[in-house]
Amino acid sequence: MIKTALPIFLASKSPRRRKLLKQIGIKYKSFSVKLKEEILDGEHPAACVERLAMEKMEIAKSKVKEGIIITADTIVVLNKQVIGKPKNKKEAEEFLSLLSGKTHAVYTGICVVNTITNSKKLDFEKTIVEFRKISKDEIKDYVSGGSPMDKAGAYGIQDDFGAVFVKKINGCYYNVVGLPLTKLYDSLRKIS
Amino acid sequence: MIKTALPIFLASKSPRRRKLLKQIGIKYKSFSVKLKEEILDGEHPAACVERLAMEKMEIAKSKVKEGIIITADTIVVLNKQVIGKPKNKKEAEEFLSLLSGKTHAVYTGICVVNTITNSKKLDFEKTIVEFRKISKDEIKDYVSGGSPMDKAGAYGIQDDFGAVFVKKINGCYYNVVGLPLTKLYDSLRKIS
Repeated sequence: MIKTALPIFLASKSPRRRKLLKQIGIKYKSFSVKLKEEILDGEHPAACVERLAMEKMEIAKSKVKEGIIITADTIVVLNKQVIGKPKNKKEAEEFLSLLSGKTHAVYTGICVVNTITNSKKLDFEKTIVEFRKISKDEIKDYVSGGSPMDKAGAYGIQDDFGAVFVKKINGCYYNVVGLPLTKLYDSLRKIS
Repeated sequence: MIKTALPIFLASKSPRRRKLLKQIGIKYKSFSVKLKEEILDGEHPAACVERLAMEKMEIAKSKVKEGIIITADTIVVLNKQVIGKPKNKKEAEEFLSLLSGKTHAVYTGICVVNTITNSKKLDFEKTIVEFRKISKDEIKDYVSGGSPMDKAGAYGIQDDFGAVFVKKINGCYYNVVGLPLTKLYDSLRKIS
């Protein structure tokens, strides 16, 4: 239902983001952008994900002549501590132990730019996620399955056991997967 | 991670429920049960979905000799009005117009029985779902795509445009798809 004559570009290498865009019927090309994703001291999570989405956009714009570009950045925050992608299996286990039985927040910043009109939409989405208590055995099983390694917070709400770690969420579900679909859809409608 | 020597049976013909069970790695056989799903006057939605899940269980038990059986029933409630599966495309459009810009509740009752020990777990899950305002054109596009016809409330949060109708949810996401996975997983662990 997004009608545009311009090509759409997703500047992300995340297979989840690619699948989500496809799910809502958007035809696009994708490429990856390399950015050292640093969190600044004292920076609010919402400001952080919007800044990172913008920094990715600056790189992405240099790669696209004409079109609509989408960039996004997702972080997981527990008690003001940012939990990134785990470096190894040991760290993945540590992250999941931290999240077990607690409530954390998932922030995604999204930036959409039309390179012809030069108009830009920048926004973020926040979803609260409550984990049930998960046992050490469950964590070991999950980590040895390989699912958590490329994901912020070391879990995927959409995959096998990630699904049953989550008791409830408050906010946009797809934001936790990696792209706040309703907000992105709205931005695309306004900009295309 | 569910370890049982007993076969597991899902008494539901819903392709969504079948897919969800598969997602969390549960091996099962499925069959359908026929039940006239009536809502009683003045019955609370939570009591209603638990009763319907139990009624389905009574039928299902007559079909299984030994095993663990799962039954479920989902309803959508807007301002105390139950919104069922649409009878035709016209009714699907009416349902979606009702839900547009409003907040409704999705209730699922789940019943799990072990036919050997005769133990039973009965529970329900409630998720609050907030729709954005959706236009008549969007509703027509969605209904003509055929997605809403076999779904309570005439939408699927997991499908193409159903995903972008939903602004936010409060509760279990998978409950809105058709099975509250974390609660079901917990029941299965206790009963198997």
